[in-house]
Amino acid sequence: MENQYDLIIVGGACAGLSAGTYAARRNLRTLIITKDTGGQIATTPTVENYPGIDFISGIGLAQAMQAQAVKWGAEIITDEATKLEKRGERDFVVSGLKKEYQGKALILAYGKTPRDLGIPGEKQYAGYGVSYCVTCDAPLFRNRTTVVVGGGSSAMEGALILAEICEKVYLVHRRDEFRGEDILLEQIHAAKNIELVLSSVSKEVLGDGNVVTGLKVAHVETGEERTLDVQGIFVEIGFIVNSALMKDLVELDRLNQVVTNTLQETSNSGVYAAGDITDTPFKQAVISASEGAKAALSAYSYIHNGTPIGVDWK
Amino acid sequence: MENQYDLIIVGGACAGLSAGTYAARRNLRTLIITKDTGGQIATTPTVENYPGIDFISGIGLAQAMQAQAVKWGAEIITDEATKLEKRGERDFVVSGLKKEYQGKALILAYGKTPRDLGIPGEKQYAGYGVSYCVTCDAPLFRNRTTVVVGGGSSAMEGALILAEICEKVYLVHRRDEFRGEDILLEQIHAAKNIELVLSSVSKEVLGDGNVVTGLKVAHVETGEERTLDVQGIFVEIGFIVNSALMKDLVELDRLNQVVTNTLQETSNSGVYAAGDITDTPFKQAVISASEGAKAALSAYSYIHNGTPIGVDWK
Repeated sequence: MENQYDLIIVGGACAGLSAGTYAARRNLRTLIITKDTGGQIATTPTVENYPGIDFISGIGLAQAMQAQAVKWGAEIITDEATKLEKRGERDFVVSGLKKEYQGKALILAYGKTPRDLGIPGEKQYAGYGVSYCVTCDAPLFRNRTTVVVGGGSSAMEGALILAEICEKVYLVHRRDEFRGEDILLEQIHAAKNIELVLSSVSKEVLGDGNVVTGLKVAHVETGEERTLDVQGIFVEIGFIVNSALMKDLVELDRLNQVVTNTLQETSNSGVYAAGDITDTPFKQAVISASEGAKAALSAYSYIHNGTPIGVDWK
Repeated sequence: MENQYDLIIVGGACAGLSAGTYAARRNLRTLIITKDTGGQIATTPTVENYPGIDFISGIGLAQAMQAQAVKWGAEIITDEATKLEKRGERDFVVSGLKKEYQGKALILAYGKTPRDLGIPGEKQYAGYGVSYCVTCDAPLFRNRTTVVVGGGSSAMEGALILAEICEKVYLVHRRDEFRGEDILLEQIHAAKNIELVLSSVSKEVLGDGNVVTGLKVAHVETGEERTLDVQGIFVEIGFIVNSALMKDLVELDRLNQVVTNTLQETSNSGVYAAGDITDTPFKQAVISASEGAKAALSAYSYIHNGTPIGVDWK
């Protein structure tokens, strides 16, 4: 059968492409189904924390990983998975918009999308002052002024991380209280350079045509507007994940992330998950790539041995 | 105090250097204590499966990671840790041969060393036909003849992986039966291109001055010698880990590997582990780098919040 594979990987960003390289190197007939190349990382102008690569564009990193997967023999098809089905052990069917694909194992690697503010200027300045990842981009704003938008633990933690590096950090939240952990709130109150901007919503990202210069916010009750003069805007208001596609297949946590163990196994044998889609709480390219590699090696064992993973080297 | 740090990382290979980059980018005062640069990866002439880098020498990859860690502000000292001590929460002391270092958190990242055969020619041809990692180097031997030395699951799994790619694979074991899983043995018997060479020990790696050409083995009882004409020799006879240094600090598994969870936490708060030293069953540079990144981010939370890790992005 033409569309029969050993391994089907859904998603073509760091996790999926790394999985493709590792699977193809193990001689698995490997298909990567993806809507686009690179996922989240492709939207990042600069990556400086991928170990071993001093400086690269996000799309450059994704393209390098894609070329590597193809070089080793992974097949990449531009399609969108619409249904994932397990018919039995080593028998999976992925329905796409174009056709159906059959595989002996499945890797879920299609990531998740950060929720955006949906305000004027945000898209224009994404990567030029607007960021969706504090760990990735905080070092760019040393001794500058930044704002974090959000009210959960991620936003609070983000503000604390930035406060270590930045001259000043605003924390904008639409409510008048936070839903993150108390200890984080104590630390935010203790930080001398964090200013809370509560009961406020973001209205517009301001810039000079090249980079961000400010964020316009408005009070939710009075409507009073205020412009925060900032060079960096960190949006930490959650993410969107296509959980409908997999909710009947694998166990998800309360954030709709796939529950995985250190071998990238999910609750369903033969189904692995890697990258931002998993419950690993760090969203980093190298972590996605590593999870992709582990998922592929685990899938290899499942396909070939039908036994739990042995140690690779002991 | 001069030797006071936020984070002390023991080990300067992929895991430790990546941890150094991530910690320094979070503004932690970070020390990496290491005997040498690069660990196992530095002994590998070519790395072709590090996602995003098509081709690089092992030492080149290690040097790139080292330069990156230093660029972001991690301090690297050439010393050997001889004692690791927890005096209390956020209070660790590492004794080295040169001096004592104090830190608020600790990352164990000093890897483990594959056990070698200790026979003539082995060192000379390491990386030129002699390999200690099937996953890393199997693709170099497509359609060639190789030999795996060892009798455990790793050796058996290695032979099966190579049998998919190689024309022929010998499996040399000093005993007349295997201690790996039964299903692996069944598959080995079923594979048409695997020849068992039992009750035999390796005597000498043969080469032409550049690359491996054969392995001389001898029967353990009769002493009869035989030369296997092979281009690749995979040594899978276990590893050596410096467990004495950490056995009172953290929980180890039966292979003396550090038990870790997906956040790289160990059984002891404030102590993290990353890379080959952990119980992750795959020994790959990208996995080590990822574990280093996660360990650093987890250590950051421990140092700053004293709370369990929040999600970085949700």
